[in-house]
Amino acid sequence: MSLEIRKATKNDASSILELINGIAEYEKLTHQVEATEELIQKNMFGETPYAHCFLAYWNGQLAGYALYFFNFSTFLAKPGLYLEDLFVKPELRGQGIGKALLLTLAKEAVVKDCGRMEWIALDWNTPAQDFYLSLGAEMLPEWELFRATGDSLTKLASL
Amino acid sequence: MSLEIRKATKNDASSILELINGIAEYEKLTHQVEATEELIQKNMFGETPYAHCFLAYWNGQLAGYALYFFNFSTFLAKPGLYLEDLFVKPELRGQGIGKALLLTLAKEAVVKDCGRMEWIALDWNTPAQDFYLSLGAEMLPEWELFRATGDSLTKLASL
Repeated sequence: MSLEIRKATKNDASSILELINGIAEYEKLTHQVEATEELIQKNMFGETPYAHCFLAYWNGQLAGYALYFFNFSTFLAKPGLYLEDLFVKPELRGQGIGKALLLTLAKEAVVKDCGRMEWIALDWNTPAQDFYLSLGAEMLPEWELFRATGDSLTKLASL
Repeated sequence: MSLEIRKATKNDASSILELINGIAEYEKLTHQVEATEELIQKNMFGETPYAHCFLAYWNGQLAGYALYFFNFSTFLAKPGLYLEDLFVKPELRGQGIGKALLLTLAKEAVVKDCGRMEWIALDWNTPAQDFYLSLGAEMLPEWELFRATGDSLTKLASL
């Protein structure tokens, strides 16, 4: 049994898309996926790489990924690392692949001199929350997330 | 009475630092501020600009700012705009400066072909929440924020 984790490159766009679709299937949200290989190449590996990714392989087979970007702490005036998606194919869970991806990201955060690493979890997903807390992370329940998207963003921009 | 909003440049590092300290004073968190003009110049206007900023001037006087960065939606494979800090000096509030900054960011999100705009608010700050909802934004109370910072991040990276 062998696990390999490596940083994704432009040539991995099809693997990244496969995993994005994997998450969407798992969450029954495939109708929301507009991602394409071309968009991944442009927005993750083009002139301005908006996000980055580590891919995990289990016995040579694509198993999962951690997709992240850099956010920013104003008090530190330093970047932070934000984990947007952590996903392991359902049939390959229970091997520690998710944990290995998370620890890889923590190392990346330290290497990049990030002041912090952040992510969000669904409030009903207590197994995930307990896992994060067991790793020493803290939960910040006092913050509420707001979003403007699609029509509401366009409306806001036209005010 | 005149309001001017413009994008910050490297020469504005001292104004940005003044506003970061303004937020910290308002939140009684000045002891947490490690930002310096040099760090702002390096991390916002250097080789990799991790964050960007619009400055607001009221009758020619520095009044506030909106500091943001680009995050990423995997389902869209497109950047999103994340508002990290929105601040108006206490003595200049009630003039619509905060709203003007927020709308400027919504326009920037549309110009940059962002799929969404996001931010967080404290759960007790219901006036701010009502304001955001009145602008058409939605609240996503099902998400919990997690963070590893300082010692817990270092520990995670060493596992």
